[in-house]
Order: sequence, then C-alpha cells, then structure tokens
Amino acid sequence: MDTGNLFQHIPATLPDELTDTLVSGRQLRIERIVSRGHASPPGFWYEQDSDEWVLLVKGEAGLRFESGDRLLHLTEGMHVHIRAGERHRVEWTSDAGDTIWLAVFHEADQAR
Amino acid sequence: MDTGNLFQHIPATLPDELTDTLVSGRQLRIERIVSRGHASPPGFWYEQDSDEWVLLVKGEAGLRFESGDRLLHLTEGMHVHIRAGERHRVEWTSDAGDTIWLAVFHEADQAR
Repeated sequence: MDTGNLFQHIPATLPDELTDTLVSGRQLRIERIVSRGHASPPGFWYEQDSDEWVLLVKGEAGLRFESGDRLLHLTEGMHVHIRAGERHRVEWTSDAGDTIWLAVFHEADQAR
Repeated sequence: MDTGNLFQHIPATLPDELTDTLVSGRQLRIERIVSRGHASPPGFWYEQDSDEWVLLVKGEAGLRFESGDRLLHLTEGMHVHIRAGERHRVEWTSDAGDTIWLAVFHEADQAR
C-alpha cells in the first residue's frame, strides 16, 4: 500500500496553487490542490473532458458556474460533482490560511 | 452539478457503520463511511476486486494489513492506497466521536 497525508508537504511560500497527483490511472486521477488566496484568472473558465468530483477538505472557497451564473460558497466537508464540459472557475479562496481540495477526475459515465 | 457535505446527515445513533454512495459509475465508486467505535468482526478480512484509495477525513482509526501484519494508525488527512486483493481490516476506530472515511473504489490498473 502507499500512504500519505493531505496536510503535509505544503511549502511555506506558495506563489502559485500547488497540485500533487496522488493517484494516476487510465480512468482516474486523484489530486490534492492547495490554494492560499488564489483564484482563477479573470475571464478564465475550466472546461474539462473528465467529470470531476471535488471535496473541500480545509479552508473556504467560492466556485462559480457559468450556467445560471451560480456561485457556490464551499466550506469544509462540502463536495461538488462537476460534469465534463461544465464551465466553472474558482472565484476566490480564503486568504486566512490554506484551502485544501481533493479532486477526483474520472471518465464521464455515458450511462448516466 | 450535485453537491453534498461529508459532515451532514449523520444519525444520532449508529448501531452499524454507515455507508453512503456519493458517486457510482462503471469504473468508480465514491463512498462516505461513518464509524463510531466500530471495527471489523474478529477474523474478518476485506479482500476486494477493486483498488481502494481511502482518506481519513475525521477521527482516528487502526487499519491492519495481513501482509507483514502491519498496523497503520490513521489520523486526519492520512490516505492509503489499498490494492485489489490486499487483505486488510479495520482494527479499531475512535470511540470519542465520529470517524469519517472517504473511499474511492476504482478498477485495478493493469498498467501499473
């Protein structure tokens, strides 16, 4: 087995968001992302080929979805299933400490 | 998008471990498991067809692996990648509160 800890190996300074791939397979990728006040650049939207299930492990963030211009305020323990092609952006993350995300990217399920 | 919160919808009494499926696809299943002092029955071992990546979100637990008789003490933020067929059991979970696991079951990757 492989082990790790989401709260470890976070650098003291974080000029950019930090992304670590924890699991990488043909159909699946699990990432830890650490933000410290970071947000998506103005006008930028994520538009992904994969479905993404994302958990806010620590901190706080605002996630905006283009469709319906919906802004989700994420707090610890909240999770969101973002479908492939669903345009979204990180509007803000807490500047009071680290925001830790767990992102599970997986092949869009045709059968849904 | 679908949303939820790992810390919500936990019953006041928990005679058995509680398992909720958060994502279910052909190649992937994500579960939240809540334990409150629960452990695997004496002599029982999990032996799964899928790989399981598991995160200890809250609480504390002991996870035993048959191979090498290794006992892992899991605290918040720790994650373990358990391969298909790797026999393991939950030796104990904290009786001081809820222990919340996030389990990502996925098809074993032949290419590893």
